[in-house]
Amino acid sequence: MDLHIALDPRRKVGSLEDALRDAARDGVLAAGIRLPASRTLAADLGIARNSVAEVYARLVGEGWFEARVGAGTWVRARPTTTPAITPAAAVDRSTRFDLDLRGGIPDGSMFPRSAWADAVRRALSDAPADALGYGAPEGVAALRERLAEYLARTRGVIATPAGVVVTHGFGGLLGLVARALAAGGARRIAVEAYGHASHRMLLTAAGIETVALPIDERGVRVDRLAALDVAAVLLTPAHQFPTGVPLARDRRSTLAEWATRTGGIVIEDDYDGEFRFDGRSIGAFQPLAPQHTVYGGTASKALSPALGLGWGVVPEALHEGVLAARAQTGTATDALSQLALAAFIHAGAYDRSVRSLRLRYRARRERFEAFVDRHLPGARVVGLAAGIQCLLELPPGVTEAEAVAEASARGLRIGGLAEYAADASTAASRRPALVVGIGAPPEHRFEQAMAALAAAVDAARR
Amino acid sequence: MDLHIALDPRRKVGSLEDALRDAARDGVLAAGIRLPASRTLAADLGIARNSVAEVYARLVGEGWFEARVGAGTWVRARPTTTPAITPAAAVDRSTRFDLDLRGGIPDGSMFPRSAWADAVRRALSDAPADALGYGAPEGVAALRERLAEYLARTRGVIATPAGVVVTHGFGGLLGLVARALAAGGARRIAVEAYGHASHRMLLTAAGIETVALPIDERGVRVDRLAALDVAAVLLTPAHQFPTGVPLARDRRSTLAEWATRTGGIVIEDDYDGEFRFDGRSIGAFQPLAPQHTVYGGTASKALSPALGLGWGVVPEALHEGVLAARAQTGTATDALSQLALAAFIHAGAYDRSVRSLRLRYRARRERFEAFVDRHLPGARVVGLAAGIQCLLELPPGVTEAEAVAEASARGLRIGGLAEYAADASTAASRRPALVVGIGAPPEHRFEQAMAALAAAVDAARR
Repeated sequence: MDLHIALDPRRKVGSLEDALRDAARDGVLAAGIRLPASRTLAADLGIARNSVAEVYARLVGEGWFEARVGAGTWVRARPTTTPAITPAAAVDRSTRFDLDLRGGIPDGSMFPRSAWADAVRRALSDAPADALGYGAPEGVAALRERLAEYLARTRGVIATPAGVVVTHGFGGLLGLVARALAAGGARRIAVEAYGHASHRMLLTAAGIETVALPIDERGVRVDRLAALDVAAVLLTPAHQFPTGVPLARDRRSTLAEWATRTGGIVIEDDYDGEFRFDGRSIGAFQPLAPQHTVYGGTASKALSPALGLGWGVVPEALHEGVLAARAQTGTATDALSQLALAAFIHAGAYDRSVRSLRLRYRARRERFEAFVDRHLPGARVVGLAAGIQCLLELPPGVTEAEAVAEASARGLRIGGLAEYAADASTAASRRPALVVGIGAPPEHRFEQAMAALAAAVDAARR
Repeated sequence: MDLHIALDPRRKVGSLEDALRDAARDGVLAAGIRLPASRTLAADLGIARNSVAEVYARLVGEGWFEARVGAGTWVRARPTTTPAITPAAAVDRSTRFDLDLRGGIPDGSMFPRSAWADAVRRALSDAPADALGYGAPEGVAALRERLAEYLARTRGVIATPAGVVVTHGFGGLLGLVARALAAGGARRIAVEAYGHASHRMLLTAAGIETVALPIDERGVRVDRLAALDVAAVLLTPAHQFPTGVPLARDRRSTLAEWATRTGGIVIEDDYDGEFRFDGRSIGAFQPLAPQHTVYGGTASKALSPALGLGWGVVPEALHEGVLAARAQTGTATDALSQLALAAFIHAGAYDRSVRSLRLRYRARRERFEAFVDRHLPGARVVGLAAGIQCLLELPPGVTEAEAVAEASARGLRIGGLAEYAADASTAASRRPALVVGIGAPPEHRFEQAMAALAAAVDAARR
């Protein structure tokens, strides 16, 4: 057998082992080949015989070679020699899109990179060594303190640090709450007629049936809850996603009364409560029924989804169940990002980020409304008093599917309202609309994205 | 009504709103109290009447107040006025422990803080804006590339970037794999007779029954698999946790044959494969049966559990199921930490960290063995050829429970072997032992921790 092996002179034995392993793995050494006697190879390479024997033994141990007593060492037949792993799922799944106006996506270019890097460094230099071990399942204490204070101050939430649970975004929280509710016997949960399909799936995957509540111009019809046999309701009171309508004040009261009367749980997704542009902040619902509400928030909008940080203010009755669900799914939130966020909030950088985003998004909102007025006759913007997405009701005769297809042909990613419908019957009753996220594009693409949208709607009109 | 309100002169209206909300929330304004007419309050405070009316309207909207047409504004009766949230579960659960020798815990004081902060800054300055959005469910491409290369180079794993899935530590991976296997019809999975109870719970929570395989001095008895009706086996081939014995070479072959013959899945927990002290690296099992093995690793040992980063090399047959399970549980891994780890590996900092930890842990291992020789007659160290934990078999007559209790009385956290047993019958057959983690204490506490251990065993001996 002729083995071409280039040894590293500084680590002959190690590089011999690596080379043989590579050769066996890559099929350069085919199965069934007999290896040179250790004595021979040792002489060829100028290595001690024992070292070669040990390398062989290790590779036998790893299963690459096999030794037959008194007969030598062979390359072992392995079940497979080719890498197994090129799943179709991992191949790029999408068309090339350069422009993005999807709902619920914040502008990544506005992430305060340098301030965040500072916060990470500060958190790392301040953290005691035990803070860098396995953290508490409910999250890092320093962050829970900051969040309790922040949520009370900005959203009116009633929270103590002990009630805060740090999660992987709102989705992580909902996954845990769904399991906790299911473990407590919940079988049905009401959802809004429009919302994230991924949220409904989290409920379904936990074994819970979803029942859709209609939405009208005053928000979701929470008055219907009384007639339904549901254990909980998932909703977006401050700014319904994606229709943009806030829950009317009397409905907030109705909801609180339902929860307290029936012991039902309100899961409040306050995904962009910080972004209200007309100066009228609508507080969170949670303080109206704190013992019956899971308040959920996220840093994905005000900072970045790349941080993967969300939080819940969880009522006492569910707290233990949520932590149990966490242990049962192997989910947790890394302590280091939490320490960094605590430092970031403490330094006032979170407030600054929200303020500067609010200004930026307000300007975009005005540009978008002006653009639609000028360039999209017959279309109408709905639900942009707050938040970073709205509905663009399409001109008469234009369908969502046509508009989305024309947008796609222009490299613009955008979704139709029907994609968010809990069931087909809901979707049929509404005027066709696109869900427009004004946060998605970076600043230098915003104009271009709007132009592509206008061109797409125009083309669909014909 | 006499309202004592201190307004911030720079933001009179905003501070009025805050003060009224606080007063209503804290019960200072009791339910049923009628508020001053907006005109009166405006005059008292020197604010425009409209501004006061708007504040009232907002607080009505939030449910704090209620307005009766033509009659004025009242403080609304709320279901509860006291914060609901001081769960018992959040109260500090543990005794005060100053010393720690638990298994599987790395030394947080050795985390390369500054190098990590550099990696975060570099990752942030290099990342395009869209990398800071919602990431791909399988993980950030740059990290999957680095990991595929790293795992092939250091552990002999056969991996392409497309097969790598980034998770929240090994637990996160196991939770997803368990759900994917259950969804595919798996009902029973073999586990090692000793291991993490949390891992067995992840399987159970996914609806899977666990069956324990015995462990002898050559590792887990994988020859028993053939007689069991199991879909998969979870094991720690390089360094059995916590007994420390590596899986013998012929058993690796037996395991590979079982997997390929039956289509069974091997879940390889390579939790500390990087730490082998006698220069003989035992490669990963995965290359022996790559289409049938989920290889799992973690940055928790070589860097820090605070990063919350782990990874799997997932065979094609399970890849889609694992990503589906991720969507169904709302788990994901934040992109920013992944970008930072990619930069950290790329800069060679991960290799450096492993090397310096290996030296440090090797030195501790020698100190620990010498310490036991000198100070713990009758005790024996088992399984410390690799990794950061071992067994300390107790002197005759000393029980685990006594030793653990005496340790606890001395502020030393440590566990008995029986705590890791899959079932009570396994535990009864082994010599009593403590699971000693030489990684857990910071350097300046290591000597003290060993002294406390010796004192505890001595006390238990009497």
